[in-house]
Amino acid sequence: MLRRIKLTLQYDGSAFLGWQSQENGPTVQSAIETAIESITGGHVRVHAAGRTDTGVHALAMPAHFDLEHTIPVERLALALNHFLPEAVSVLSAEEVAPAWDARRSAIMRWYRYQILRARVRQPLGPRAWQVWHPLDLDSMNEALTLLQGDHDFSGFRSSQCQSRRTRLTLEEASLTAAGDLLAIDFKCRSFLHHMVRFMVGTVVAMGLGKIDRDRMLLIRDKGQRPQLIYCAPPEGLCLMQVGYGEDERKEILNAHPTPPSF
Amino acid sequence: MLRRIKLTLQYDGSAFLGWQSQENGPTVQSAIETAIESITGGHVRVHAAGRTDTGVHALAMPAHFDLEHTIPVERLALALNHFLPEAVSVLSAEEVAPAWDARRSAIMRWYRYQILRARVRQPLGPRAWQVWHPLDLDSMNEALTLLQGDHDFSGFRSSQCQSRRTRLTLEEASLTAAGDLLAIDFKCRSFLHHMVRFMVGTVVAMGLGKIDRDRMLLIRDKGQRPQLIYCAPPEGLCLMQVGYGEDERKEILNAHPTPPSF
Repeated sequence: MLRRIKLTLQYDGSAFLGWQSQENGPTVQSAIETAIESITGGHVRVHAAGRTDTGVHALAMPAHFDLEHTIPVERLALALNHFLPEAVSVLSAEEVAPAWDARRSAIMRWYRYQILRARVRQPLGPRAWQVWHPLDLDSMNEALTLLQGDHDFSGFRSSQCQSRRTRLTLEEASLTAAGDLLAIDFKCRSFLHHMVRFMVGTVVAMGLGKIDRDRMLLIRDKGQRPQLIYCAPPEGLCLMQVGYGEDERKEILNAHPTPPSF
Repeated sequence: MLRRIKLTLQYDGSAFLGWQSQENGPTVQSAIETAIESITGGHVRVHAAGRTDTGVHALAMPAHFDLEHTIPVERLALALNHFLPEAVSVLSAEEVAPAWDARRSAIMRWYRYQILRARVRQPLGPRAWQVWHPLDLDSMNEALTLLQGDHDFSGFRSSQCQSRRTRLTLEEASLTAAGDLLAIDFKCRSFLHHMVRFMVGTVVAMGLGKIDRDRMLLIRDKGQRPQLIYCAPPEGLCLMQVGYGEDERKEILNAHPTPPSF
């Protein structure tokens, strides 16, 4: 009997070369597929809601695969965790309808980016991009307001992005400060490749005074991204949650936990 | 001109085989001494307030050494961090009196132990000992009350401990719960080898119902530690702060931050 299984995964991205299997080193996908193989004896392909890049974290990444084994689904999470490395964990496993697809069925994605305003490194601090130079929060908030809404986000994607649809409705782009820690939340049905990291790079460039509102609008409306805008580093980025129905979508839009979240 | 320097260090213990230099792998002491050598060109010995074991973290570990170099002390922290691995950081550097000694001048030490009550691993969660079986907090609090105060702590040290003075005044042994995360704080002038981890092992044994109050008193008053008491794992332990004057001692005794702290 073939059962479609939804897994919810948490991982520390610093231990992996991203989600997608590759030959150069450990990936989350390989780790999960190997663990499943240790239980079932057969190779299966696991599909995630999104393919995170090298170094990017996930607090709750949904994924699916088809299980051809009699193990009770209630035991699957602990059994898989037994075979997984420390940096990744199956938070839950449940049976879903055969047509359910972790990527295609998703209607809301939430990414959070953490920035630590500190001069010295904090090895026990939260996972974050450490920014030493003073950031103007008003300018950052202005940048986020300009990003929110319905736009063509071509100016905020990597040159390798293959997505045909670049017009998206960014339902939320907001900043929460907790002492020296800033959290920037982005909520959207889907994102382009490197879109969150380029948006954060742009928001920080505004916060540092490197670009002004007019320059920002040129990126947003004309897709003209200047060289000085960098792709924010992966260690501050985390996929927080993915929503599949209207209830989950609303739950995500209402969620604003105080950082640190990861 | 020889200057005595106080460093305050933060480190993630999972990256080191403890504080003290040894041949088998990386230690915090070697990392700091190598970084100093990169600046001054000469080898110096660095002395810490305490020698943490393999895997134990430090939020603010004081240490001292004698500097024979003209670098301004204000630049020392950033200069050292440039040469240090990511898992350790110099939070601050300051000149102190020549007789000041990180270990001998200390009059108060604060260790915190974090326990996560969870069934599945949380790679993005706080550093903690993950305990799956239900813990009775009332029993744990009772155990902590029995530990606090003036006792001979011979029953809570490793067989390798060489300390002659085993009678100590444990000024605080307390529990703070924040959801699934528990933090146990111990504050004392000095600690014996493995003392915090054996105390936590005993408190958890009470919380699991493996030992009762009478058995606990046998350990405390007769030094008879049963085989079933284990030394709690290092990943949940962190040196929080060390105090050197009456003001710092009081500040530490009054500090009770909500976990997670690391």
